[in-house]
Amino acid sequence: MKNVKYAKCVKCGKIYEATPNLTNCECGGILDIVYDYDYIKANLTKEKLAARPHDMWRYRELLPIEETTEPTPLRVGWSPLYEEPRLAEKLGLKQLWVKDDGQNPTASLKDRASAMAVAKAREAGAKVIACSSTGNAASSLAGNAAAAGLKTYIFVPSRAPKGKVAQLMTFGATVISVQGSYEDTFELSKKAIEKWGWYNRNAAINPYLSEGKKTVSLEIAEQLQWKMPDYLAISVGDGCTIAGTWKGLKDLYAIGFIDKLPRLISCQAEGCCPLNRAIAENKDWHPMEENTLADSIAVGVPRNADKALMAIRESNGIVVNVSDAEIMAAQKLLGMTCGVFGEPAGVTGTAGVKKLCEQGVLGKNDTVVSVVTGNGLKDVANAIKACGEPITIPSDMDLLLKAFADKGIVVE
Amino acid sequence: MKNVKYAKCVKCGKIYEATPNLTNCECGGILDIVYDYDYIKANLTKEKLAARPHDMWRYRELLPIEETTEPTPLRVGWSPLYEEPRLAEKLGLKQLWVKDDGQNPTASLKDRASAMAVAKAREAGAKVIACSSTGNAASSLAGNAAAAGLKTYIFVPSRAPKGKVAQLMTFGATVISVQGSYEDTFELSKKAIEKWGWYNRNAAINPYLSEGKKTVSLEIAEQLQWKMPDYLAISVGDGCTIAGTWKGLKDLYAIGFIDKLPRLISCQAEGCCPLNRAIAENKDWHPMEENTLADSIAVGVPRNADKALMAIRESNGIVVNVSDAEIMAAQKLLGMTCGVFGEPAGVTGTAGVKKLCEQGVLGKNDTVVSVVTGNGLKDVANAIKACGEPITIPSDMDLLLKAFADKGIVVE
Repeated sequence: MKNVKYAKCVKCGKIYEATPNLTNCECGGILDIVYDYDYIKANLTKEKLAARPHDMWRYRELLPIEETTEPTPLRVGWSPLYEEPRLAEKLGLKQLWVKDDGQNPTASLKDRASAMAVAKAREAGAKVIACSSTGNAASSLAGNAAAAGLKTYIFVPSRAPKGKVAQLMTFGATVISVQGSYEDTFELSKKAIEKWGWYNRNAAINPYLSEGKKTVSLEIAEQLQWKMPDYLAISVGDGCTIAGTWKGLKDLYAIGFIDKLPRLISCQAEGCCPLNRAIAENKDWHPMEENTLADSIAVGVPRNADKALMAIRESNGIVVNVSDAEIMAAQKLLGMTCGVFGEPAGVTGTAGVKKLCEQGVLGKNDTVVSVVTGNGLKDVANAIKACGEPITIPSDMDLLLKAFADKGIVVE
Repeated sequence: MKNVKYAKCVKCGKIYEATPNLTNCECGGILDIVYDYDYIKANLTKEKLAARPHDMWRYRELLPIEETTEPTPLRVGWSPLYEEPRLAEKLGLKQLWVKDDGQNPTASLKDRASAMAVAKAREAGAKVIACSSTGNAASSLAGNAAAAGLKTYIFVPSRAPKGKVAQLMTFGATVISVQGSYEDTFELSKKAIEKWGWYNRNAAINPYLSEGKKTVSLEIAEQLQWKMPDYLAISVGDGCTIAGTWKGLKDLYAIGFIDKLPRLISCQAEGCCPLNRAIAENKDWHPMEENTLADSIAVGVPRNADKALMAIRESNGIVVNVSDAEIMAAQKLLGMTCGVFGEPAGVTGTAGVKKLCEQGVLGKNDTVVSVVTGNGLKDVANAIKACGEPITIPSDMDLLLKAFADKGIVVE
């Protein structure tokens, strides 16, 4: 890879050659891929980009793949970025965009990391990929791997919503549903991966995956014609996504494509916010219980804490924790105002923005991009809890009139 | 609209001015939008198209909207068309493409019609849109209307899967769940629309909607560089989608963008196939029960029978009915081989192609496009029925080894 110098441990600084099957540093630290920005500057221009297909591989000079590596089969990335003037007005912001990353092949941002995993597994000559996941990494890996003809072993906590499990089974993965926490799930996957030598798609072990995730911020920048907002809000669980998002922004800054770095807004659930607590208290992070309906970010022991905390701090970021009720309210608000249906963890970023507006931290001079990280169809049970049930009647106009009257619905 | 001549009844031939709130002909027949192909030829070139944004409005010269009508807010269309050599080989076809139209904002092809409904409602100055639907037309209307700031009243049969209902409620629609068949649902919506004068998004009443749906075949043609396959397979319920698909192909042929018309393959469920039965027996269609798990195409009284039957016959089409078991098998096959997760009705087209291959009707000289019309996440319960449950164990390697042994899983 001419664009990549090496991988470097974020903890001890040790340097590794960027081979396709890299895992953690021997000290236990996470590795970071270090690029040759001079090479990239000489080889990538905005004009070149503009002519390319609309998927994540358009940014290949900024990605840790061999020049000969083929794009993966599913069309990942280039999700829509909607400007939302009505929601901006409701919240009291100058300008707001919603990036609907639920519009990906398996309906979450995790497709970006999983497509990268498939690309790197192919480079490594692997035929089997494994991961543990709260659900979305799993279903995206299963889908992207199936399309590429690779086999998958997937470990999910038994709390994973049915939609995600249905995806896994349909994509033909061997699925192990672990009765326990995400941490228990992760540990079992780790042992199995060690035993059988599968290609490892655990995002905090495989340093390439957050490089896939960073394409979300590369896209946001390009979709905004390289004019960056003041803030970028995103939900945080394991920490890989916010770390990747920041990496993408720093890459673009380093090659001169953008001249401003937005501040990150790290949004976690009140019931599980070890990273935000660490920032707020300016201390190390400590494990927490996993008490939130936002299953994708219910991560009590974040596996990528180092990179995530570094990203939030470097960006002079803001942290905000939201209750499950606030998450459900944001889900409904996004649906009603924007026609965007996010899963609970997916809308947690928007819930955080809303809360910061109410607290007066954000206001009428601020421009914000809020990333919705997963589709609400993945977790229908919680959506119905949030939004209620329909009017149910036989086919009869009198009963319809009565139902409207009972519910106080005045027809326009 | 300079590109539109008028609307014409497919039954009696009566001509109407193409005003935005057209409904059926006074004879009860469905209207068809008639274009001025000379005008379109003079104003649309393949090169012009190539430079446009990737959504359905790129085809505006071929769509019945005013030149000043803005694109609707959600990004509808330009779903991926995947070439699937491994599935083609499994089925014994020369070449096969899968168009994953579950990759739309509300996860079904119906977004194309609903975006058109929103565009025309805006032209009509309407603030409220209503429809009845087996589910997808409903959720797509609710989402597209919410994004445009329009109010919706939606009638669905109470059998509609939870995923679709969750979408409706999240998008803020007023939802009436009708205890009865789709026909009962349609009748109640009709009465309510008459009473309150809402803009009518019932696809077989509003002639503009199949014009939105036709963008699926416009895209297929463009994505194949205007080289058409021998066959185009699609699931059929109300008849509007296959009629729209055919209209798009004929439009392109009329303006000289393609020089071959594929034969349509009309795929219905054995338990509800009034249109295919009419073709097979070369008779008029008659109502049927709605006995299939493929809820979106469980339409016993198809509302757009005339246009659909005409399309199948004109294209020298093939009809094929599949059992629920064949639908479930196709769902799993698409998932495992292509990484595409379709809902039962969504994969019925592929189930039909598979059956025709097994029957020897299609074979190694044939090229086929199969459209997947909706995302499997909309109907998780049936996906789990089709694909089974995962291995469920505590976090323990010995139990994992035992579970693999019990299930006969040999780890590679």
